[in-house]
Amino acid sequence: MTSLILTLTCPDKPGIVAALSSILAENGFNITESQQYSDMEHNRFFMRVACDGLLPQADLEAMLAPIRGAFNMQLQLYPADARLRVLILVSKFDHCLIDLIYRQQNGSLNMDIAAIASNHEIGRQWADNAQLPYHALGGKEAKAENEAKLTALIDRENIDLIVLARYMQVLTAEFVDRYGAQIINIHHSFLPSFKGAEPYSQAHARGVKLIGATAHFVTAELDEGPIITQGVEPVRHDMSVGAFIDVGRDTERRALARAVRLYTERRVFLNGGKTVIFD
Amino acid sequence: MTSLILTLTCPDKPGIVAALSSILAENGFNITESQQYSDMEHNRFFMRVACDGLLPQADLEAMLAPIRGAFNMQLQLYPADARLRVLILVSKFDHCLIDLIYRQQNGSLNMDIAAIASNHEIGRQWADNAQLPYHALGGKEAKAENEAKLTALIDRENIDLIVLARYMQVLTAEFVDRYGAQIINIHHSFLPSFKGAEPYSQAHARGVKLIGATAHFVTAELDEGPIITQGVEPVRHDMSVGAFIDVGRDTERRALARAVRLYTERRVFLNGGKTVIFD
Amino acid sequence: MTSLILTLTCPDKPGIVAALSSILAENGFNITESQQYSDMEHNRFFMRVACDGLLPQADLEAMLAPIRGAFNMQLQLYPADARLRVLILVSKFDHCLIDLIYRQQNGSLNMDIAAIASNHEIGRQWADNAQLPYHALGGKEAKAENEAKLTALIDRENIDLIVLARYMQVLTAEFVDRYGAQIINIHHSFLPSFKGAEPYSQAHARGVKLIGATAHFVTAELDEGPIITQGVEPVRHDMSVGAFIDVGRDTERRALARAVRLYTERRVFLNGGKTVIFD
Amino acid sequence: MTSLILTLTCPDKPGIVAALSSILAENGFNITESQQYSDMEHNRFFMRVACDGLLPQADLEAMLAPIRGAFNMQLQLYPADARLRVLILVSKFDHCLIDLIYRQQNGSLNMDIAAIASNHEIGRQWADNAQLPYHALGGKEAKAENEAKLTALIDRENIDLIVLARYMQVLTAEFVDRYGAQIINIHHSFLPSFKGAEPYSQAHARGVKLIGATAHFVTAELDEGPIITQGVEPVRHDMSVGAFIDVGRDTERRALARAVRLYTERRVFLNGGKTVIFD
Repeated sequence: MTSLILTLTCPDKPGIVAALSSILAENGFNITESQQYSDMEHNRFFMRVACDGLLPQADLEAMLAPIRGAFNMQLQLYPADARLRVLILVSKFDHCLIDLIYRQQNGSLNMDIAAIASNHEIGRQWADNAQLPYHALGGKEAKAENEAKLTALIDRENIDLIVLARYMQVLTAEFVDRYGAQIINIHHSFLPSFKGAEPYSQAHARGVKLIGATAHFVTAELDEGPIITQGVEPVRHDMSVGAFIDVGRDTERRALARAVRLYTERRVFLNGGKTVIFD
Repeated sequence: MTSLILTLTCPDKPGIVAALSSILAENGFNITESQQYSDMEHNRFFMRVACDGLLPQADLEAMLAPIRGAFNMQLQLYPADARLRVLILVSKFDHCLIDLIYRQQNGSLNMDIAAIASNHEIGRQWADNAQLPYHALGGKEAKAENEAKLTALIDRENIDLIVLARYMQVLTAEFVDRYGAQIINIHHSFLPSFKGAEPYSQAHARGVKLIGATAHFVTAELDEGPIITQGVEPVRHDMSVGAFIDVGRDTERRALARAVRLYTERRVFLNGGKTVIFD
Repeated sequence: MTSLILTLTCPDKPGIVAALSSILAENGFNITESQQYSDMEHNRFFMRVACDGLLPQADLEAMLAPIRGAFNMQLQLYPADARLRVLILVSKFDHCLIDLIYRQQNGSLNMDIAAIASNHEIGRQWADNAQLPYHALGGKEAKAENEAKLTALIDRENIDLIVLARYMQVLTAEFVDRYGAQIINIHHSFLPSFKGAEPYSQAHARGVKLIGATAHFVTAELDEGPIITQGVEPVRHDMSVGAFIDVGRDTERRALARAVRLYTERRVFLNGGKTVIFD
Repeated sequence: MTSLILTLTCPDKPGIVAALSSILAENGFNITESQQYSDMEHNRFFMRVACDGLLPQADLEAMLAPIRGAFNMQLQLYPADARLRVLILVSKFDHCLIDLIYRQQNGSLNMDIAAIASNHEIGRQWADNAQLPYHALGGKEAKAENEAKLTALIDRENIDLIVLARYMQVLTAEFVDRYGAQIINIHHSFLPSFKGAEPYSQAHARGVKLIGATAHFVTAELDEGPIITQGVEPVRHDMSVGAFIDVGRDTERRALARAVRLYTERRVFLNGGKTVIFD
């Protein structure tokens, strides 16, 4: 049995679903899950299909070639049980890292943590406990060196997804250009409020009654990338910035874990500055 | 242009989606929304499709006849813009009634309130304000007479959906047998907790920290019908039963309005004692 | 029996609670509810006390005079059952207005709606239905005239609280200076995100996954006033701006109703650009 | 400086707050936080006060002796920074254990984990990683032996709080009688729904749309103890029992951590079959 996830985007026009489902049907594939979206403003079509059949993936791939061209599709097929290879970057705060390791271990997240890299030592202990490879990075002044090291690591380890689990170094435009659609960051505010540094202090100064966290793709412009998930928690006037940070840890780890799950299940599509999420 | 909503359920087996989508494609229908679910435990398949085409509905209906039989489908086609005709029953508490009237008026709910019926006078003023037909019902002792009146009304007015918007009379088994899959009730607790009478008093006595509301289909067994939507709100030790009731009003009207919206959009399917919701 | 709410703020220093509670005790007042907060950053103390006794309010007031001076207190006493007199301003969207009227009628909000004023006709029907006085305002070009009319109305009707229930006219600095601490506005975004016009369009363009509403005091700087309550609801990529607006109505009316309830119960304190909320 | 938390409960009558606050004032104690509640149905008064002064705790204790007797108070004084000594019991599911360890380590919970005990080996690794004492318990057949071991441990280690972090053994009535008000359990359902075994399976069979978790004190009657905190998360028709369990882990660990925090801060009071929570 071949179980596949098919994702596609293309200019929207009539007949896409019919053409695709006919090919699947003719080749004995049964659709078990199907979601689609037409962005009428930008005339763009998005689809995610889970299907089972007997043909090997490569054969189905060949059968799909004609509609790929005809509709100008970006179409991918993935084995449904493929585990993504993930690189986690972390700086001084380890709550998101610990949470991702735990969720991977208990089977909530269908991924392999191929490596952990950090510009602080904090990640090392957790990597060791979980028997995962750890890579030390330099600080701000070693940005070029760090990114060269990461690029080599990403290539060597066939990394599918890079998770910035409270990684506090700004990445270069070159690095973001190359991997941006594979980099998920967790920002510790309810974007677009409180971009930049120390969002909890900003939120505290403004006197908000809810604080949030946002998981998003990374773009060259800081904290402006397409949003994948967001979460909030109530706060009160009598809570300090430190208390905000404490509450925020929960919100961050949940928003990030959800974004990572959606991504590993191929449920996240880029659509200009926004995302399409088939949850 | 013919815009349709197609709903179907049938025993699950390979080829359903392919067969359906082929017919839609061959007849020039473009799928704009599609959701499906296989209940593997009961081997039952559910699907909702929104599609646009040029053929009249009746012609498509004819083209679908063969697969209807082949797969033993319960298949319905509805014009996408069809407005359901709704009967609202209410007793002493009017918050759900008012909310439904308002949502219908501002266009949030794609329905026509064909009639309001009540065993208390409270509904009359709101019906009058909104220029909607009002029908007075008798009390507990007039159950047979009430249901005869309702049945006549339902038939005469071609009612699609009956909403028990805090209607406190228990319906007879005969009535429920006849209309149960078209009756949505709002129960003022987080079912299955606190079935029966005075759920807020029960919740208060138990000392819960969240109270809830449940919109569900009506079955012969009280408060045991398939659940459509549920909501909760936090409560505190220093709140009285009256304060619970006050908080609960918000939860009830939101849970009920959401259930009604889902139903009017043909997103709710019965599956034994449960529901499938394509939201 | 005299049931009172006492609110006070003053520079923080030791002995405030002791001094106050001694006077209450000596005069036979029993404290039934008590909350306090010390803002250590700004060295400011806030307190709300509910108490019952036999002395008339004026007598207790006199007994409190010495500590008022000694601690430089802003101290107010209110009969616990005093109903605030409220003026509601509204423009084209009536959901918040309707909700406030309903909550007032069912006893959720301890206030009297003394008047409704609007620069659109929409408020008139609801005012008439609820038998409340309605005052027509002019448009943007009549700002001076409108505010003169409102000022006269506020004075004549002894208005305690002005609620901008989706009132789309910007108030002058003079008006805000005079009444700002008595004006609650509902902004249809999760402030500080999406200040200014058409926040739902802004939120849609940014691709957020939660939309919000914020009830806040009005200051001369638009949408920068101290926040009282906030709420959010999830949204999806396939929702239009119109769908955001529809979801937003619920969030707005709940956030606003909660802010009004807190205010009428004397639970809201201004603290520079923030609020202290004793809920 | 002496920083204290004072908790008291007694029959409700006028003058309690006055008497207490006078003694605090006379002895130079400044109240920094104060909350109270009168249960009028059972004529019971509850209060929690945080205060700072210069007298040693024992001296204040002596000064309070007269009102203790006069009002028949259960009154306790605790140093504000006292760290509770906690015993965590766990069986096969380790998510709550891991979460509590992490929160203790990062300073969110003001407690010392004095010991971890388990009837499965799963706790040992985490205890070792965190360098915490681990105690192996026997299975169901060794209940008497287990509880003897636990009792000895509790006494020897001066345990203040026992956390059943998914401990699946039912405790004897004797054990519960002795320690019940110090035992917090996390039940993996929204009580009182789905008491007893396999609540997620029960919830799945009933087709609920929200699943929950409940942290509560342990009483002789299973899952009937006073509720401290509750949380819920939405679920969908297409989720398996396994998916419920996965979602539930998050809800459980958050509800339990919150209950533990409230308890360690002396914010939880027993009131018959309910709790008073001063949050």
